[in-house]
Amino acid sequence: MPLRSDWSADSCPIARSLDVIGDPWMLLILRNALLGARRYEEFRSALGVADNVLSRRLPAMVDAGLLRKVPYRAGQRTHQEYVLTEAGSDLLPVLNALLLWGEKHTASPHPAEHMGIIHSCGAESTSSDVCSACGADLHPADVSWRRPWRASDPQPLTGAVI
Amino acid sequence: MPLRSDWSADSCPIARSLDVIGDPWMLLILRNALLGARRYEEFRSALGVADNVLSRRLPAMVDAGLLRKVPYRAGQRTHQEYVLTEAGSDLLPVLNALLLWGEKHTASPHPAEHMGIIHSCGAESTSSDVCSACGADLHPADVSWRRPWRASDPQPLTGAVI
Repeated sequence: MPLRSDWSADSCPIARSLDVIGDPWMLLILRNALLGARRYEEFRSALGVADNVLSRRLPAMVDAGLLRKVPYRAGQRTHQEYVLTEAGSDLLPVLNALLLWGEKHTASPHPAEHMGIIHSCGAESTSSDVCSACGADLHPADVSWRRPWRASDPQPLTGAVI
Repeated sequence: MPLRSDWSADSCPIARSLDVIGDPWMLLILRNALLGARRYEEFRSALGVADNVLSRRLPAMVDAGLLRKVPYRAGQRTHQEYVLTEAGSDLLPVLNALLLWGEKHTASPHPAEHMGIIHSCGAESTSSDVCSACGADLHPADVSWRRPWRASDPQPLTGAVI
């Protein structure tokens, strides 16, 4: 990761947040964790990310309290899965805000295929953190993302595993 | 800026947004633009940022459509101010979401001094993009940030200059 400033003890919470997640790869890893990825290979293939990038980011995200390592057995070997913590799960509004801004201000390669935030009440939310139809707070367990270039049905998100 | 992936034509709007603003310095520059900074020196002193960082970011943010250059005269010379575009101004919800996450999940050096999003209706909003008290969309012209370590009164934000 590039050398950069340390904002971990900054008075401003925006700067402190950026000290933790001011890295685009981490936010994309969180996006895919919310979409259900847990294993190194799942992140690698979904993100098209180089091993040297991913193998540094995942432990850094564990250290930062965004992900938690959980062992699983495959055959004779024990591997690690990475599951969202509450702090990681609580970044959904940041990702939703980036989603809504990107839909408005960047050009999609598939203009007819609009990504959307679908709340469990059935409505599409135009707010990142509160359902704009029913007013409920948006948590991963109650949200699906519509990504028409991937699937016809909205995909339910996965939050923190307790 | 570090070499990194090009997500400008990604199907996912989250990735496209990160292609534009996936840089912590740009988000901090936007924070200070919302707080009223316009001139190079204002950004430099408010952010404590090195010249080589700032002198690359500001033109990159103009190219990305987040800021616009406006000339002003000081004595015999013409200088440039950087004012927010609509696209830059529309990043307020991203900054507010980072603010709310940082307040919840990072440790402040001044725990009693809580940063807050104050809507023009008088209430503090716990949502990043819709006032959690009155339901109005949050635009910079109607929002102040309370930053008690800087000033006792909330500071009104500045949006796009038309």
